[in-house]
Amino acid sequence: MIEENSPLRVALLGCGTVGSQVAKLLLTPGDLAARAGRQLELVGIAVNHLGRSRPGLPAELFTNDAESLVDQADIVIEVIGGIEPARGLLLRAIGHGASVVTANKGLLGQDGPELYAAAEAAGVDLYFEAAVAGAIPIIRPLRESLVGDEILAVKGIVNGTTNFILDQMTITGSSFDTALAKAQELGFAEADPTADVEGFDAAAKASLLASLAFRTEILADQVSRQGITDVRPADIASARRMGCVIKLLAIAAPIESDPTRISVRVHPSMVPTSHPLANVHGGNNAIFVESRHAGRLMFLGPGAGGAPTASAVMGDVVAVARNRVRGINVPPVMAGSGRSAAGIDEAVAADCLSMEVADSPGVLARVATVFAEQDVSISTVRQVQSDQRPTTAVLEVTTHPALNAAVTAAVERLRGMTDTVVGEIRLYRMEGL
Amino acid sequence: MIEENSPLRVALLGCGTVGSQVAKLLLTPGDLAARAGRQLELVGIAVNHLGRSRPGLPAELFTNDAESLVDQADIVIEVIGGIEPARGLLLRAIGHGASVVTANKGLLGQDGPELYAAAEAAGVDLYFEAAVAGAIPIIRPLRESLVGDEILAVKGIVNGTTNFILDQMTITGSSFDTALAKAQELGFAEADPTADVEGFDAAAKASLLASLAFRTEILADQVSRQGITDVRPADIASARRMGCVIKLLAIAAPIESDPTRISVRVHPSMVPTSHPLANVHGGNNAIFVESRHAGRLMFLGPGAGGAPTASAVMGDVVAVARNRVRGINVPPVMAGSGRSAAGIDEAVAADCLSMEVADSPGVLARVATVFAEQDVSISTVRQVQSDQRPTTAVLEVTTHPALNAAVTAAVERLRGMTDTVVGEIRLYRMEGL
Repeated sequence: MIEENSPLRVALLGCGTVGSQVAKLLLTPGDLAARAGRQLELVGIAVNHLGRSRPGLPAELFTNDAESLVDQADIVIEVIGGIEPARGLLLRAIGHGASVVTANKGLLGQDGPELYAAAEAAGVDLYFEAAVAGAIPIIRPLRESLVGDEILAVKGIVNGTTNFILDQMTITGSSFDTALAKAQELGFAEADPTADVEGFDAAAKASLLASLAFRTEILADQVSRQGITDVRPADIASARRMGCVIKLLAIAAPIESDPTRISVRVHPSMVPTSHPLANVHGGNNAIFVESRHAGRLMFLGPGAGGAPTASAVMGDVVAVARNRVRGINVPPVMAGSGRSAAGIDEAVAADCLSMEVADSPGVLARVATVFAEQDVSISTVRQVQSDQRPTTAVLEVTTHPALNAAVTAAVERLRGMTDTVVGEIRLYRMEGL
Repeated sequence: MIEENSPLRVALLGCGTVGSQVAKLLLTPGDLAARAGRQLELVGIAVNHLGRSRPGLPAELFTNDAESLVDQADIVIEVIGGIEPARGLLLRAIGHGASVVTANKGLLGQDGPELYAAAEAAGVDLYFEAAVAGAIPIIRPLRESLVGDEILAVKGIVNGTTNFILDQMTITGSSFDTALAKAQELGFAEADPTADVEGFDAAAKASLLASLAFRTEILADQVSRQGITDVRPADIASARRMGCVIKLLAIAAPIESDPTRISVRVHPSMVPTSHPLANVHGGNNAIFVESRHAGRLMFLGPGAGGAPTASAVMGDVVAVARNRVRGINVPPVMAGSGRSAAGIDEAVAADCLSMEVADSPGVLARVATVFAEQDVSISTVRQVQSDQRPTTAVLEVTTHPALNAAVTAAVERLRGMTDTVVGEIRLYRMEGL
């Protein structure tokens, strides 16, 4: 039991970029107590390496005994990242009746349902606004503001690293490797960029957005995922000819023919330059929500960084503190809609295909026949000079919205027609038309 | 007392554009009960004129006895607008222990503190997400998501009518009157457009945004207000030469020299075309929030209309229903920061002044001296051909951020110099530089 008017004891797990900012905010509280309804006391910071210098933070707060720290806290903030020990410590905190705040999308994307169930069973809060799109308030709007509406689709730029790299490639015409090196040099990408550039980070966030928007439980490994490592300058040029830019989008939307199935996917997409998402630059994130009644809403802001993420964490800390003072807790998610994740084959999208073809009569007719046989309706065709060989041309085909399985089948068929298609076939889905 | 598992009884006050949408959503609930935690039963709709035809809504729900309807409800939704009878009915509902949801910015801007206090005293919810920026979730993010941060400024396009009119003037070069007529023809403006074009609607919303962002109670009549009726095609042309567009902004920000005082104002502003707010078109609304840690966030979406506003109302209805089922209530506002409203004279902004001057030597020196005497630092000066008279020129002056009182004093002084300034002086504040 919390004694009336005694401070709420806060434990911080992790002290990296986000954690150190959170610690500073807790140590210079201003009128935080008035906002939270009770004093918040930072009782300790669990870290791996006690020796490291952490300027501005009192040495006596640090401990490497995270379990003991968790056991004495009313509120536990987890900013370690990764699965273990974060998962075990959060479950321990919940088991002891502490409220928890986490920014850990990887953990929630994998073990969210277990943690949500544990929090509900224990009657404590589990808040995670910082897990998606940094400081942009998106979890709360999806969970609360739009709960009286019907969400039709969520489309977002949720990874700042890949947005920076694609921006670089678009502006400078550089290769992926060059743009990645620049991003690493400027601190926009990690030394090991896999989680970002292969779309794992975006997929975890997509699973959370989809779960909240469609009130179900979708895990990160149920998200169709394609990163940006294969995006080439020629693709960016091709997008430009279409009046588009290439963005890595996280998308969640019900399958039209069966709304109980939700297509959740992360892939590079062509977005028309007039679409608000096309104008989200650098490390910014943006979430575009289409709903039946509210129409089209967009939420824009910094998607990462210590201070913005710490702001989101602190918003949650104040919220769980207020709830605790009032003796209540809020269910972490509203699942129970029974909707399930659909594979990428079931998704319907307009596509842009680019292929090197023999520059000879009848080629277009043969290509068009293949699409027709798969019931894929062609929207536009454009033939551009090949920069590879004089005897070939590049055919750029856009389709009307089509079942992904059908488009993939058409591509397979075209690949086999080696007299017609003499080079690679590049395929991008188009969003926001 | 609410019986366990009996439906929550919902009363709807008003059945105009928003109310009829809300009624339809309550009558076709889908999985609303699952989301709210209890069945919601629409027990009646109070209207002035019982005879009117309202297709799709059962006649037996309508009553003109609003007071009796309120007395039997657990949740009261007020979408009448105006002060009375809305105020009396909401106080009556609160007095009976009902939770209330309102979209009435005019009422909250005038009598908000009385209603908030009544709701807190009665231990019931008063939610009002729909009162500002239609369906855009902004109340909840300000009240909850950003509560762990420090908000530095809120700037918003919160009135779709004036945004549409200014857009029209910018695109077509037309006069205010012509653009207003067009807006009325298309349903973007009322027959009596005063509340919109004179900035009263935006001022009420500004008072709510300022109160939430800076945790105090600022009333609509404490907001410095200037509408758009005096905006002229020449001003729009002048803005264009500066790389700006004119937008009616609602602004709330602490005075730098005394952060306990909040400048809250609504006026036409010059906004650089590169700023996200410059690209908010037609009837859309957008709120730009600058905060210490989260950085710059923007929320964009439809600002009005029956369906979007009804979506925001329904989000609140679900929230207050959930709270009721759990036996809790949330304070409507977090006041208590002790901050007060500052007058426009105390505001600091960069300005753009345009004035017709005699085309003779020494004019610029005399104008510059006036600014210098008032401690207003000039940023740029541009002389353009007058389209009025060949013997005069138009001088466009932009200032560095300056105290509004000083700029006003300079303008007064210049107006007296009839040998130098031979025509009108036009003054616009610049935002978002």
